[in-house]
Amino acid sequence: MTQAAISTLEHVGIFIFAMSGALVAVRLGLDVFGIAVLALITGLGGGVARDVLIGDNPPVAFESWGYLLSALAAAAVVFTSSGRIGRRERPILVLDAIGLSLFCVTGAIIGVDAGLGVLPSSLLGLVTAVGGGIMRDVLSNRVPIIFEGDLYAVPALVGSVGAAVVATQEWPSFLFVVASGTCLAWRLAAMFRGWSAPRARGTI
Amino acid sequence: MTQAAISTLEHVGIFIFAMSGALVAVRLGLDVFGIAVLALITGLGGGVARDVLIGDNPPVAFESWGYLLSALAAAAVVFTSSGRIGRRERPILVLDAIGLSLFCVTGAIIGVDAGLGVLPSSLLGLVTAVGGGIMRDVLSNRVPIIFEGDLYAVPALVGSVGAAVVATQEWPSFLFVVASGTCLAWRLAAMFRGWSAPRARGTI
Amino acid sequence: MTQAAISTLEHVGIFIFAMSGALVAVRLGLDVFGIAVLALITGLGGGVARDVLIGDNPPVAFESWGYLLSALAAAAVVFTSSGRIGRRERPILVLDAIGLSLFCVTGAIIGVDAGLGVLPSSLLGLVTAVGGGIMRDVLSNRVPIIFEGDLYAVPALVGSVGAAVVATQEWPSFLFVVASGTCLAWRLAAMFRGWSAPRARGTI
Repeated sequence: MTQAAISTLEHVGIFIFAMSGALVAVRLGLDVFGIAVLALITGLGGGVARDVLIGDNPPVAFESWGYLLSALAAAAVVFTSSGRIGRRERPILVLDAIGLSLFCVTGAIIGVDAGLGVLPSSLLGLVTAVGGGIMRDVLSNRVPIIFEGDLYAVPALVGSVGAAVVATQEWPSFLFVVASGTCLAWRLAAMFRGWSAPRARGTI
Repeated sequence: MTQAAISTLEHVGIFIFAMSGALVAVRLGLDVFGIAVLALITGLGGGVARDVLIGDNPPVAFESWGYLLSALAAAAVVFTSSGRIGRRERPILVLDAIGLSLFCVTGAIIGVDAGLGVLPSSLLGLVTAVGGGIMRDVLSNRVPIIFEGDLYAVPALVGSVGAAVVATQEWPSFLFVVASGTCLAWRLAAMFRGWSAPRARGTI
Repeated sequence: MTQAAISTLEHVGIFIFAMSGALVAVRLGLDVFGIAVLALITGLGGGVARDVLIGDNPPVAFESWGYLLSALAAAAVVFTSSGRIGRRERPILVLDAIGLSLFCVTGAIIGVDAGLGVLPSSLLGLVTAVGGGIMRDVLSNRVPIIFEGDLYAVPALVGSVGAAVVATQEWPSFLFVVASGTCLAWRLAAMFRGWSAPRARGTI
């Protein structure tokens, strides 16, 4: 995939994830600055973690006006339209799922481009995908979405492994769409169908 | 600004921030070791995050007795005098504001000295200023101060942008004092006057 | 100590810490994927923090199947035997103590091997030892074990200082066992005897 395409997907993913963070901030009753802060951390957190892990200093989010503005634009959209979006949980989860499916692929590709193998690139995609959401949930004192019974980390891992293989083998780019789409479809199906995984014995 | 001046301000900032962490630990009813732990994390956390982000390995806080001892001295002062300081919230917030105004400036200067531009240096100053407080609040399960309605991140950003510009342009050093003072005055005014920012519609 | 010995201890420590994370996940009522996620983060978190701090990119946990599988094996053991282990706190704390005593030593040795002095190596050992537990407790919204009145960070620091000195001076390897054993005995004694440290005045 070209740099321009990756960069575009990164901006879209940041915008989407930042919207989820901004919506959580609205639910918490935070003011406009709190909304912007949580949007920035949620939108940029996964990518910053990724860059720290591969030693890309300073993280690209610190050097790019575009990344910052994408996150702030998401905060502005949520702030001005929150009356219509309301304070429900569902839009947060859907946005999170879209961001997840974008970032698992871009994170894995960035890993391969940095010279990493399939395993570390896949894990890098996973961290990129789940990092912003973990920070959002820890800061806002929510149960981390990565713990939820609905399958979450597994579709992200499948998407990032797929993307890492496609990037390593230099297979055609549309397969990245397949990887991302698989992650998204899986996650949404788990959410909407209420799939649940087995629990340990003795658990209520 | 000379290295010695930056180093002095760093030590003062670490001491001040560590005091805020130690006071939070006293409020939580932690013992003397819990107080030292939270003082160390609060005092050193922002600088460690800064060094990780610019790839300065290991972080300077790991190589300096002075940094460690500044944080531990703060814990000792709080431990021995907590009967007088009491367990109120206000001293924590005032100390946090002073630390914020020092670290936004030193963090931005360190960014410029590491060869970064104005944008990344400013964001580095912001992370240095808010990092320790975020870690303190997450660990002690408080609402992150960075979310609070009183303006917090914005004065820190104004201070760090100011310091980054002054350092990049090599303007006279007293302007760093202006940048830091602006951040402090703004933050304290927001706190004491109860300024509040607009909230999203539908928020109580 | 040889690379092979360090690597073996790392795998054991990851397995043990991951078990503590998996047990916390069972207590929270998480499903099998939540258990795996918390096991991975608890088992690998300290080492990832260590590698980020010394600039070893990407972290070794990202490049090693063995590390991942050690953590996942711990999750599998807990998942299949949780009926017998139950949902009590004590096994979590004992496992945490064993992981602590292993990681303070391996972390400090890795610091010395990376060319660091005694002070930074000791702090690196401390971060390696307490990092995974902090992440586990923050994500699962528990009071961070590092705050607890029972002595926790101090034995870890004693173990890592001991290991850093032994590694720097190239003293005989069995002294690493002494350092690790001191940490473990101290921590377990503090736990089982209910040692407690002084609190600040005004604290209940």
